[in-house]
Amino acid sequence: MVKNQEHSALTGWRRKLHDIIFEAETPAGKAFDVALLLLIVLSVLAVLIDSVPGIHIKYGKILFVAEWIFTILFSIEYILRIYTTFRPGKYIFSFYGIIDLLAILPSYLSLVFTGSHYLLVIRMLRLLRVFRVLKLARYVGASHVLAIAMKNSRHKIVVFLEVVVTMVVIMGSLMYLIEGPENGFKSIPLSIYWAIVTLTTVGYGDIAPQTIMGQALASVIMIIGYAIIAVPTGIISVEMAKAKDTPLSTQICPDCHFEYHDEDAVYCKKCGSKL
Amino acid sequence: MVKNQEHSALTGWRRKLHDIIFEAETPAGKAFDVALLLLIVLSVLAVLIDSVPGIHIKYGKILFVAEWIFTILFSIEYILRIYTTFRPGKYIFSFYGIIDLLAILPSYLSLVFTGSHYLLVIRMLRLLRVFRVLKLARYVGASHVLAIAMKNSRHKIVVFLEVVVTMVVIMGSLMYLIEGPENGFKSIPLSIYWAIVTLTTVGYGDIAPQTIMGQALASVIMIIGYAIIAVPTGIISVEMAKAKDTPLSTQICPDCHFEYHDEDAVYCKKCGSKL
Amino acid sequence: MVKNQEHSALTGWRRKLHDIIFEAETPAGKAFDVALLLLIVLSVLAVLIDSVPGIHIKYGKILFVAEWIFTILFSIEYILRIYTTFRPGKYIFSFYGIIDLLAILPSYLSLVFTGSHYLLVIRMLRLLRVFRVLKLARYVGASHVLAIAMKNSRHKIVVFLEVVVTMVVIMGSLMYLIEGPENGFKSIPLSIYWAIVTLTTVGYGDIAPQTIMGQALASVIMIIGYAIIAVPTGIISVEMAKAKDTPLSTQICPDCHFEYHDEDAVYCKKCGSKL
Amino acid sequence: MVKNQEHSALTGWRRKLHDIIFEAETPAGKAFDVALLLLIVLSVLAVLIDSVPGIHIKYGKILFVAEWIFTILFSIEYILRIYTTFRPGKYIFSFYGIIDLLAILPSYLSLVFTGSHYLLVIRMLRLLRVFRVLKLARYVGASHVLAIAMKNSRHKIVVFLEVVVTMVVIMGSLMYLIEGPENGFKSIPLSIYWAIVTLTTVGYGDIAPQTIMGQALASVIMIIGYAIIAVPTGIISVEMAKAKDTPLSTQICPDCHFEYHDEDAVYCKKCGSKL
Repeated sequence: MVKNQEHSALTGWRRKLHDIIFEAETPAGKAFDVALLLLIVLSVLAVLIDSVPGIHIKYGKILFVAEWIFTILFSIEYILRIYTTFRPGKYIFSFYGIIDLLAILPSYLSLVFTGSHYLLVIRMLRLLRVFRVLKLARYVGASHVLAIAMKNSRHKIVVFLEVVVTMVVIMGSLMYLIEGPENGFKSIPLSIYWAIVTLTTVGYGDIAPQTIMGQALASVIMIIGYAIIAVPTGIISVEMAKAKDTPLSTQICPDCHFEYHDEDAVYCKKCGSKL
Repeated sequence: MVKNQEHSALTGWRRKLHDIIFEAETPAGKAFDVALLLLIVLSVLAVLIDSVPGIHIKYGKILFVAEWIFTILFSIEYILRIYTTFRPGKYIFSFYGIIDLLAILPSYLSLVFTGSHYLLVIRMLRLLRVFRVLKLARYVGASHVLAIAMKNSRHKIVVFLEVVVTMVVIMGSLMYLIEGPENGFKSIPLSIYWAIVTLTTVGYGDIAPQTIMGQALASVIMIIGYAIIAVPTGIISVEMAKAKDTPLSTQICPDCHFEYHDEDAVYCKKCGSKL
Repeated sequence: MVKNQEHSALTGWRRKLHDIIFEAETPAGKAFDVALLLLIVLSVLAVLIDSVPGIHIKYGKILFVAEWIFTILFSIEYILRIYTTFRPGKYIFSFYGIIDLLAILPSYLSLVFTGSHYLLVIRMLRLLRVFRVLKLARYVGASHVLAIAMKNSRHKIVVFLEVVVTMVVIMGSLMYLIEGPENGFKSIPLSIYWAIVTLTTVGYGDIAPQTIMGQALASVIMIIGYAIIAVPTGIISVEMAKAKDTPLSTQICPDCHFEYHDEDAVYCKKCGSKL
Repeated sequence: MVKNQEHSALTGWRRKLHDIIFEAETPAGKAFDVALLLLIVLSVLAVLIDSVPGIHIKYGKILFVAEWIFTILFSIEYILRIYTTFRPGKYIFSFYGIIDLLAILPSYLSLVFTGSHYLLVIRMLRLLRVFRVLKLARYVGASHVLAIAMKNSRHKIVVFLEVVVTMVVIMGSLMYLIEGPENGFKSIPLSIYWAIVTLTTVGYGDIAPQTIMGQALASVIMIIGYAIIAVPTGIISVEMAKAKDTPLSTQICPDCHFEYHDEDAVYCKKCGSKL
């Protein structure tokens, strides 16, 4: 109750702004969100093509201006989000709150550190909201299932990664002893890098064993890598089979920013606020 | 009822032609379909070998003539299909109707744009009918199961691809900052390309990290790629386990071109026409 | 009954030889089988190392003599097998009968075609009997489960491969148009080869796209390849989950050469002969 | 009963030392274990960076001293472990007992064989105790599930590997015949190595087929490799689905060193000693 009163405490244009920025139920809110998604895509594309030498020489100045326009727009949006939310602290330290900040920081950082503006691609992360904004309940449900399956797999995945790391360190060191610097295995860290490239079946080929012993050990690593890829797959398949697969509401709790509510939920199941 | 009357409205040789071209129940229809499959294979092979320089010089003229013979035959077949079907509009815009058109277009296009005749390999897609034509109900059932599993997985696959794309854009940009143009990472789009090559464990090795920091980040990308390949596998395994696996009729509805009917179906379950 | 009489019709030393060669129940039969496995391993190793230039120069003559000794031994064994079996025809055209023949043929062929003696490595296939010979019922059961799962997956795998082949032909042709001979894509067949290398995530890197368009299409192929590897995995996982997993008898029916009998089976379930 | 008396037979400081070294229940025992983990990580890092030429020249002497300090500390620890355990024989030949020995041996070996001190990375294996030491029951449970799934899959994995080995030997030999030494396939063992690189989809590209026949066979190997990776995945997924997933006690039996006890276990289920 108290919370709902607090909610209605935002009045006048501040209340209106809140509904436009945070909600996508009203036409204005919907338009705002779609425009925002477009702006994000454009701003990321601008960063990408600015890094191509030919384009940088020709259009570098325009892209520089565009980047600052995007940054200023996103900065205004960020300030408005803080200003119009009920509990600024909750928003600022929520997942998307942090991303919204990270999406503007690199521009300001680039005033001090050259090149850091390329980090603006982190704006991509803002696009993860796309399914919620476009009210695609099926996709919100699907991403929830994936998130649940990943979360429930985490203990096994950590154990698996511990074994993989132990394996590549020992295998890499053995290869360093067998092949040695004269065959491209210049140090143990580099040999470990090679072992990762091999175990994951990436296989660049910039470093490759030359001796018979080395090729024999490499064969063992490859076959192990080929077989144990089955382990994470098995882990996640099993969790995926368990996870309940239902469309979810695309609403976020206005108060605690909890994300996954059932389609018929009226109150947030975490904090009791009206959705 | 009305539809069945419409069906019988096709009379005389037009009716006969319909049964030969669209059905494979009669000996003539069977022979037509098998001959068609052979022609398609031959015409695709002709395009493939024509692209080999040595063969093009020696047999280029013969292959050019052969290609036009194939094209004219397929064009006649396409016109006959339109002419003998009950509802030309349905056929023209059905999946196979579009493919049948695409399978002849490139030849005519090559009169204007050189090289476009290589697109004739799109005729391969016509071979997807092979199991239906050869009346292999088990395979039609199997492809139905796969199609169902893919269809039911689509929301999760889209979410998965969104995460993968976000990941490669951010990872690629980081690598561009770390390695830079002097190590082959000439622009962010190229670095993203490299990140895709690495995350999918393809690993050409035309671009490979040279610095220790770059190799460390590459290792992280590889291990992520190695682990998250488990996700689509888990998704599809689960859907595959759910999908019912029965042999299906190899019939297509003559009226609405719906493809998957049970073996004992007499009427199309989508439009009620007699099969 | 008739069959069992036929069985006992083999008398004297011929009967004894049969039990030594085909059975592994008696000490002599066990010793024969283990000796045979060893001989096969040695003969394959001899072929392998004979191909190494340094070893061929030094030990070529010894290995040549060894090869002929192995071949003569295996030829004698093959003749004895035919001579001591109840129904020579059944044995000759059984899976292992054909392999036993293929395991000696290349030596005789090498009298006519140089180099063909390297085909002797086909003797490896004889080692597939190893679990049965060593009476490892658990492994015979495991290989049966795998064989059943593979057999039940075959329709779906064929449909999957058809789609993969269609995809690499079309993708390869597109890459040929986009990249062209000047970037290493010298013909459509070669481009298809490249598409297979890429889709299967092998990625040699001997051919790699150079243009932006080519790299974009390659990225699509890689991501498709990365995602659809889930399909065969899903197919086989599902069949594997269905297959019953019990240890099986290591006996082969002496009469019809059927391989998979339950541990408590006394008569062959295919032909009724006593095991 | 007898065992518990034996347990209490260790008295005074020897008893205290035992509890510090082997248990992690008391503050001193916990501190000891955490310090040990840190020392292990540091000592492995020292070996890794010592192999980098630049660092070896600058800090080689310091790292040499550090290595010997670590070795002496671990040697003292090893002796104390033997001295304070109830049944030294059980400890010495237990899994971790052997690893504890292997973790100090290479230093002493390096007095005789130069370079063997790089084998000290085997100390990594000691880190496998990390979840138990840090009392993370969920992770101990997860590693137990993985171990069980691996153990139950072993028969099928062995059969699978036998088929894979047979396949790469035969395929490798065929490629040697087709491509020959002039295209980099210098011997059959090297061609088998190439076949493993290809089948496991690693694909270094240091050896790649040049002839059309070779590329065709390579395509077949790649597609087989791409499809049969489904087999180990299916095997392990199925076993993983069966394995019970519960948090386990992080206790090890003081007497028989058995590792996996239920959380509510008071006596070892293998030997009856009090935990």
